[in-house]
Amino acid sequence: MEYLSRRAANLTPYTAGEQPKDKKYVKLNTNENPYPPSPKIRPAVLSALPGLPLYPDPEAQDLCAAIAEAEHVGADCVFCGNGSDEVLSFAFCAFFDGDLPLLFPDITYSFYPVFAEFYGIPVKTVPLDRNFEIDVKGYFQPACGVVFPNPNAPTGICLSPQKIRRLLEYHPGRAVIIDEAYIAFGGESVVGLVGRYPNLLVVRTFSKSHSLAGGRVGYAIGQPPLIRGLLRVKNSFNSYPVDRIAAAAARAAALDTGYYAKIDAKIAETREKFSAELKKRGFQVLPSKANFVFASPAGFSAKTLFLKLREHGILVRYFDKPRTDRFLRITIGTDAMMEKVLKAIDDILG
Amino acid sequence: MEYLSRRAANLTPYTAGEQPKDKKYVKLNTNENPYPPSPKIRPAVLSALPGLPLYPDPEAQDLCAAIAEAEHVGADCVFCGNGSDEVLSFAFCAFFDGDLPLLFPDITYSFYPVFAEFYGIPVKTVPLDRNFEIDVKGYFQPACGVVFPNPNAPTGICLSPQKIRRLLEYHPGRAVIIDEAYIAFGGESVVGLVGRYPNLLVVRTFSKSHSLAGGRVGYAIGQPPLIRGLLRVKNSFNSYPVDRIAAAAARAAALDTGYYAKIDAKIAETREKFSAELKKRGFQVLPSKANFVFASPAGFSAKTLFLKLREHGILVRYFDKPRTDRFLRITIGTDAMMEKVLKAIDDILG
Repeated sequence: MEYLSRRAANLTPYTAGEQPKDKKYVKLNTNENPYPPSPKIRPAVLSALPGLPLYPDPEAQDLCAAIAEAEHVGADCVFCGNGSDEVLSFAFCAFFDGDLPLLFPDITYSFYPVFAEFYGIPVKTVPLDRNFEIDVKGYFQPACGVVFPNPNAPTGICLSPQKIRRLLEYHPGRAVIIDEAYIAFGGESVVGLVGRYPNLLVVRTFSKSHSLAGGRVGYAIGQPPLIRGLLRVKNSFNSYPVDRIAAAAARAAALDTGYYAKIDAKIAETREKFSAELKKRGFQVLPSKANFVFASPAGFSAKTLFLKLREHGILVRYFDKPRTDRFLRITIGTDAMMEKVLKAIDDILG
Repeated sequence: MEYLSRRAANLTPYTAGEQPKDKKYVKLNTNENPYPPSPKIRPAVLSALPGLPLYPDPEAQDLCAAIAEAEHVGADCVFCGNGSDEVLSFAFCAFFDGDLPLLFPDITYSFYPVFAEFYGIPVKTVPLDRNFEIDVKGYFQPACGVVFPNPNAPTGICLSPQKIRRLLEYHPGRAVIIDEAYIAFGGESVVGLVGRYPNLLVVRTFSKSHSLAGGRVGYAIGQPPLIRGLLRVKNSFNSYPVDRIAAAAARAAALDTGYYAKIDAKIAETREKFSAELKKRGFQVLPSKANFVFASPAGFSAKTLFLKLREHGILVRYFDKPRTDRFLRITIGTDAMMEKVLKAIDDILG
C-alpha cells in the first residue's frame, strides 16, 4: 500500500461481472444486448474521424439534441456523460448533501453506496417488500433525495409512474433520480413526468437498450435547473467530455428509434418465453421488465447452479448476500442463447 | 442555485479555451494538432465496431500493451484513462494526502488547483524564476508530492531530466508527477527514469502529439505500485473505462510511431520559424519545447492584440493574471496557419 493516500487506502474497489478470457462463454452476466447496434452507426463513426484532432464539444450538444428529439423534450433538458455511471456520480455530487440521508432500496444497483461514500453523503436503505418490490411508503421520510433503478436491479421489477409521482410529491425541492437503464424492455418510463416535476431526474444509458456498452454513453433528462447543476459539476472538476466518435455513434443510435424498438421488443419476448420455461422447471421468477431475469431454482442451491452453469460455458451473475443468495440474475440474450441455458439447466438439475 | 448541494454550490467551473461557432477561425487557442491522425486509425476503428454491444475491457489492456511496446516499458507499468485529466485526477486521489502541501508552480496548468481542492489536498505554489523557469530548489521542502507539466504550460519551457532526478531524490516515498502532455515536440522525456525511480509517475495524452483531442485518451507510466494505486482508485468509484472505439483508435496511434514522429517534428520546425519571426517583430518569446509559444509583444498590450487577432479570425489564448498578462499563448499549427498569424500581427501592429 506504499504511496497510497489514506483516502485511496480506505476505498473498496467495486467488483464487476467477470469477463473471463479462458474460453468462449455464453455471456449472460453483465446485461449486454445480444443484437448488433444500428447499421447507421458505421457511417456516423466514419464521418466523425476527420474531426479527431479537435477537442469534442464539452457538452455534446449534437448528441443532446438527438436525444431530445427522440424523447420529445427540450435540448436544454438533456445532459450527456461517459456512461450513466458518470452521470449518476455527477448527480450525487450536484444534488445530495450531508444533513439528511439519501434513500435507496436495500437490494439495488451496487454503485449507489459507492458514490454516496465517495461524496460523504449519509445513506439509509429502505427494504424491498416481501415480493421484492419497492414500497413507496418506505420513502415517505425526511431525506436529501431518493435514487433507484426502474426497473430495479437485480430484481427486474418495475414501479408504475403513479407510484413514482407520489414520491416526487412527497419530496419537493429534493432531487429524485430514477435510473431507467433497463426501461426499454417493457417498463413505463417517467420521462413524460419531467415537465411537471422539477425535482425529477431520469438517468439513461445506451449500454443496454442500444447495444452500445462498448461506447460508454449515458444521459440524464430533467428540467433545466437540474441539467445546469450537472453541467456545473462537470465543468468544475471534469474536462473529459464524451469523445467525438462515441458521441457520433450514440447520436446515430438515438435517432434510429425504429431499429431499437424492434430489437428491444424481441428481447422482451425472449424474456417472457424464457421465464415461462424456468417456471415450468419450478423456478421462482420475479416479474421482470428488464433485459434480465432474477430467478431462484427450487430445491437447489443457486450458488451451485451458478458454478455448474459456468462449467457448462454459461456465465450468469450470483450475489452472495441475504435474500439475493437464492437467486441468479440471467441476462436475456437471443432465443438460441436462452435455449442453451435451459438445456444446461436440464443437464444440471437432471 | 436551487437543488444544488453545498458541495456543488461552492465549486468554481473551469474556463476552457473558447470554441466559438459564429464564424470560421484559425483556431490556435487549445493546443490541438493541425495534422490528421494516423491513417491506421480508420481500419482499427472499423474493426472495433462489431464489439460495441459488449463492455470494454475495464483496464484497456490491449491499449496498455501497445503503449508499453512503443515506450519500451512493461505492460504493468501503464495505466489508461479518458484523457490525461482523468488520469491526473485519479493520481491526485490515489497519492496525495492532507498533512503536507502538494507543490506545483505558480504559473502552470490550471487544473491542478481544481483537482487539489476537490480532494481536499492543501497546495503550495512555487514561483517560477524571473526567466519563467521552474527552479527545482524551490521544491526542496516538505510536501505530500509534486506535480508539474514538462514542458510547463503556458510557458513551453522544458526542464532537463537531470533536474527532475534531483526532485525525485529529494522526495523518496512521495509521488512526483511529471505531466508530459507536450513532450513530443522537442523536450526530453523522463520515461527512461521510471525503472530507477519508484516515485515517478509520467502522465501523457494522445490529444496533442497524436492528433486525438477528440478521442479523449491519456495514460500514465510508472512502476507497478503506482499503477496499482491508480487502478484501485479507478475501480473504486469509476466504472467508465476507455470506450472500445477510442481505445482502438489510440492503440493504432500508439503503434504508428513513425507517422507521429514526422508530424511532431514538423510542428517543432514550424515553431522555431514562427518564434524567429516573432522575435524579428520585437516580441519576447519564451524558449518553447511545446506545440505552442508564449510570446509578449513589445510596447503593445497583449490583451488588445488578443482581441484584435480575434477580429482578424485568429483565436489564441490570453491569461489575464499577474506576470502572464503580458503574453499570448499561441498554438503552433501548419506553416500556412502561422503565416496568417504573422500577417495579422503585421496588420495590427502596423
